[in-house]
Amino acid sequence: MNMRINKLMSWLAENDYDFAFVQTKANVFYLSGFYSEPHERLIGLFIFPNDQPVLICPNMERNQAKSAGWEYEIISYSDTDNPWDLIHQLLKMQNKSGHAIAIEKEQISFTRANIFLHMFPHTTFHSIEDKLNSLRLIKDEKELSVLKQAAELADFGVEVGVNTIKEGKTEMEILALIEYELKRKGVREMSFSTMVLTGANTADPHGNPGQTKIKKGDFVLFDLGVVLDGYCSDITRTVIYQEVSDKQRHIYETVLEAQNAALSLCKVGSKIGDIDTIARDYIEKAGYGEYFPHRIGHGLGIEVHEFPSMNKNNQDLLKEGFVFTVEPGIYEPSIGGVRIEDDIVITKDGFRSLTSFPKELLVVK
Amino acid sequence: MNMRINKLMSWLAENDYDFAFVQTKANVFYLSGFYSEPHERLIGLFIFPNDQPVLICPNMERNQAKSAGWEYEIISYSDTDNPWDLIHQLLKMQNKSGHAIAIEKEQISFTRANIFLHMFPHTTFHSIEDKLNSLRLIKDEKELSVLKQAAELADFGVEVGVNTIKEGKTEMEILALIEYELKRKGVREMSFSTMVLTGANTADPHGNPGQTKIKKGDFVLFDLGVVLDGYCSDITRTVIYQEVSDKQRHIYETVLEAQNAALSLCKVGSKIGDIDTIARDYIEKAGYGEYFPHRIGHGLGIEVHEFPSMNKNNQDLLKEGFVFTVEPGIYEPSIGGVRIEDDIVITKDGFRSLTSFPKELLVVK
Repeated sequence: MNMRINKLMSWLAENDYDFAFVQTKANVFYLSGFYSEPHERLIGLFIFPNDQPVLICPNMERNQAKSAGWEYEIISYSDTDNPWDLIHQLLKMQNKSGHAIAIEKEQISFTRANIFLHMFPHTTFHSIEDKLNSLRLIKDEKELSVLKQAAELADFGVEVGVNTIKEGKTEMEILALIEYELKRKGVREMSFSTMVLTGANTADPHGNPGQTKIKKGDFVLFDLGVVLDGYCSDITRTVIYQEVSDKQRHIYETVLEAQNAALSLCKVGSKIGDIDTIARDYIEKAGYGEYFPHRIGHGLGIEVHEFPSMNKNNQDLLKEGFVFTVEPGIYEPSIGGVRIEDDIVITKDGFRSLTSFPKELLVVK
Repeated sequence: MNMRINKLMSWLAENDYDFAFVQTKANVFYLSGFYSEPHERLIGLFIFPNDQPVLICPNMERNQAKSAGWEYEIISYSDTDNPWDLIHQLLKMQNKSGHAIAIEKEQISFTRANIFLHMFPHTTFHSIEDKLNSLRLIKDEKELSVLKQAAELADFGVEVGVNTIKEGKTEMEILALIEYELKRKGVREMSFSTMVLTGANTADPHGNPGQTKIKKGDFVLFDLGVVLDGYCSDITRTVIYQEVSDKQRHIYETVLEAQNAALSLCKVGSKIGDIDTIARDYIEKAGYGEYFPHRIGHGLGIEVHEFPSMNKNNQDLLKEGFVFTVEPGIYEPSIGGVRIEDDIVITKDGFRSLTSFPKELLVVK
């Protein structure tokens, strides 16, 4: 039995829960190795305290689940079957009382939860998410190795982008070439919609790349990542084209110093909120407080945004194996935006950055 | 007030529902024009029978919502606010009794539904999804125009792919070039993970592109689509490289004829299930029944899989303005797979295919 499922089985037994049902792409992958976008179809995993787990998926995905290493029972269904009938049979056959069920309360739909309530009118629902999140928070060696490779591909994506910068090139042309080169290296999926922004567009932290052309004195901001073997990377770098004003340089250096301040707290035992606060204070003191509208970062792993949330109110302490982004930014509407983002893993001795594209202000000539 | 929201307001009034809350990317976009991936953050829309609607979104997205044309109130929040506190205030200020609430029961999370239950312990929940789906089923002229453009880009993607086929090219190299050329045309996002499969890999309807190289006698299957202005396309074409066996030709012609049979029923008043059945019967009679494991198609619009589900049990009748795929396939493990897929709109007089890449068996030399 795989160790992750074993841990959940013990947890179910300890809490006297009848079974767990997991049905998000990320958690199914974490527990089974099977990575599949269910679209509107059901892909789920039943875990029992004392019986072998069961995967339910469309017929067409049965072989992929097996190839992904799933060795236990699979119940599969066609487009015209109702998978819930099959689930009902399974639980009946196993004589489940359904007195207490662990589900992804934050993510399972109201309708799906109600199907269980209909099967087991006296059940109580318990969240499995805190448990799964606490497991997923600590990345093991194998996960770190994949995350490192994913980060290297993100570095490479920025490199391609920087090398493509030229007067008159559009954001979308550069974006297209970055993704082309990454896909030629075997990347199937970006971890989110790639961002290449230039000039005034950089001042929107969630801007949309388009047909804007690069011109002298523009910031050019790259924010991108890949999914590799189910794990995400996420890097941001900002460079400048041909010439840099004092104000632009000041903004850039402020963001870089704010990131360095945040990184100085990246070690076992630091309070997460302090990492946001130290960077925010630095940016505020430099006079740009109102232009840093987002948290310092987010956890990173199977999902590009996962736990921990790196915000100033988070009182949790960093532990070895946590992976998250550190990405301060300043978005000054009249000048443009700068963000610098790395993927950080907490080690025994401090931290290691998985991303490594250089961060000194680069003036592309 | 936009017409779609107007219709929902009347529907709320007729049913004596207190308010509706909509929080999926697709439905928020359909009603507000604001297209945004919320990740784990909350983006939602409150619609009231007699008051103006209210959008809730992160601070950082406020401007984008306005640029997208949202003219009504926006409540926005920072990463450290709890958006539900703001919602509570809003509903209290508006003196909502919460006696009956319309929500996306199939898609809202158990946790979010329970927050409303906590605010309004005596509420009843009603599904807004049937209503929204019935509105979204009928595409208007503007939607059809965008869907047509999205389909033309999908045609172009297949054309790029076919022109790139060469001995020894890998699936991923071809895939990379297709997406590159599409992105250079301004496509920001594919509607799903592009599929380029060759040889034995084509026999898996959900196969994963990789480093397999094209060789003489291989089927090469392209399944791809783009998102354009919030609307999806989805095309599949299968070609063959250099030489074709009789068996391969027979499979190809069978799929094409099965599609033609299905298309012959694509008109106002046809029962949806019959469209699946006529194609399935054709494939069964040709001896490949066991190798067509999926439904004939799916609705297409803001989501790449939406209503109607084109499966044999669907008793609904086609109406003018329905848009869906017709995509029979035969996947013969020892020979390979063929799928042919078009995006179809039901017109007054029959149907129109939005996709138009040629379908005669193409032997790429």
